Amino acid sequence: MRVPARLVAHGLGVGLVSLVTVQEINGFLEREFPGNGNRCDEVGERWAVALRTDAVNLRPGGIISGPTVFGVCDAALYYACFTAIGIEPMTLTSELSIRFMRPARGTELRARADLHQVGRRSIIGSIVAWTDDIARPVAVAQGTYVRPT
Amino acid sequence: MRVPARLVAHGLGVGLVSLVTVQEINGFLEREFPGNGNRCDEVGERWAVALRTDAVNLRPGGIISGPTVFGVCDAALYYACFTAIGIEPMTLTSELSIRFMRPARGTELRARADLHQVGRRSIIGSIVAWTDDIARPVAVAQGTYVRPT
Amino acid sequence: MRVPARLVAHGLGVGLVSLVTVQEINGFLEREFPGNGNRCDEVGERWAVALRTDAVNLRPGGIISGPTVFGVCDAALYYACFTAIGIEPMTLTSELSIRFMRPARGTELRARADLHQVGRRSIIGSIVAWTDDIARPVAVAQGTYVRPT
Amino acid sequence: MRVPARLVAHGLGVGLVSLVTVQEINGFLEREFPGNGNRCDEVGERWAVALRTDAVNLRPGGIISGPTVFGVCDAALYYACFTAIGIEPMTLTSELSIRFMRPARGTELRARADLHQVGRRSIIGSIVAWTDDIARPVAVAQGTYVRPT
Repeated sequence: MRVPARLVAHGLGVGLVSLVTVQEINGFLEREFPGNGNRCDEVGERWAVALRTDAVNLRPGGIISGPTVFGVCDAALYYACFTAIGIEPMTLTSELSIRFMRPARGTELRARADLHQVGRRSIIGSIVAWTDDIARPVAVAQGTYVRPT
Repeated sequence: MRVPARLVAHGLGVGLVSLVTVQEINGFLEREFPGNGNRCDEVGERWAVALRTDAVNLRPGGIISGPTVFGVCDAALYYACFTAIGIEPMTLTSELSIRFMRPARGTELRARADLHQVGRRSIIGSIVAWTDDIARPVAVAQGTYVRPT
Repeated sequence: MRVPARLVAHGLGVGLVSLVTVQEINGFLEREFPGNGNRCDEVGERWAVALRTDAVNLRPGGIISGPTVFGVCDAALYYACFTAIGIEPMTLTSELSIRFMRPARGTELRARADLHQVGRRSIIGSIVAWTDDIARPVAVAQGTYVRPT
Repeated sequence: MRVPARLVAHGLGVGLVSLVTVQEINGFLEREFPGNGNRCDEVGERWAVALRTDAVNLRPGGIISGPTVFGVCDAALYYACFTAIGIEPMTLTSELSIRFMRPARGTELRARADLHQVGRRSIIGSIVAWTDDIARPVAVAQGTYVRPT
């Protein structure tokens, strides 16, 4: 029923193949999660970048809160799942572990998720989050989404 | 410099000893994290309960979002650290792993953190989160805070 | 097909109900995992204790190695699953996160796992490991087993 | 006191700089951990590959056990720390989370760890483990080592 990811290209560039486009993911988010602050910024074959531009939940000193960083990591992994299996709203976070590496200062927060495995029941990926300087990530994470049965 | 937790009681009941009261934690949160939706609900010896009552970030179907559940777990562990070492704002989440068990439906979200170890450099605890029915937790987590040096 | 755990008692004491006995688990381990160093020490309703008595893999200073501690935690969670669903060899570790709290000195290593959720697809539990002094645990862990489909 | 990693090369090839060689790590392991089954296979700038060739702890069906896979991941991260800070035996695992993706069949087990951050107090890295086919990893992990103070 689902088309294998490798058979469907969206003109995303050489070697980048995703079952969905950035526009399709963001359209889905606007319809289904209107209050959600995360958006999709980029997609490729089994990876995606999530972006958060509002400055809610700032800690003292202009630092973006840990749960906000967790949220953008979780969103990136959600979108990365979509690149492999299509938009499946009921693909749910099973578990996620996150390590915070430095204070998240800056005006934009991004996270990139790369999938390690797309199984019949679950999907596993790793995530890196950063603010203004991609060379100085603020957190890394790794986690599992479960697919609807 | 810091008073050992066991030497200071706050009248919390038999066997419940904390270096801080609920009121002291909430006063600190209001001053330092005014935009933060979590509050302290209960404290004891090396444990604390965090509470979130607003319904922000709801997913379709009235479900509280994963990052919001992560946030209340993280807050509970933060407050539990305070029960053991006093209010130390720069005690920071080092890592946290969370497992989501069922959809978080309900109007109130709580998490209880219990400390396993209060070390010189780090503090380790386990967390359970629930909404209206404590017997049906929505998530469990475990993590590490690092103390300022 | 499987008998609900609450309907089957094995005479383990007041309030302690498990689908399997310690003897049944150890018989299974001897048949199926003859080279495995872990044994079951105790079981109850949705919990189990694993025990390791050999001193293999010692680090310098007589410290039991991290992977050995991980192994006894993983074993305890495996046995705890059996208390809830019966002996299902193909119940497999999906993910496990572990925090090491102090050097594992001693001649006996034990871990106790308590289940938080027994789902149709997965089982989630928390684990504490200790050597000679149960009041000074050497590690805590939390993880997920997946059930065969 | 410690020489920054970038200033010391060991002739490991273009762009590959490590504070230690494979031979130095394996010499250290033979002296300090004679009973340990893991060896260093490769090192580079902030990464290392660990190798296990014995077939101990096999599960039924010739599958390498989960704790053995955890052990090679943990070893790879230990060696990767050495590439950045030199051989520091008391660099210890603080926490590690692992996700098992497929049965570990094969005669050789390898894990590669890449460091995300080398901090004053802790070191964070991600790990991939595989047996005969590097394109089909058996597990991924992520964790934290703490440095001696």
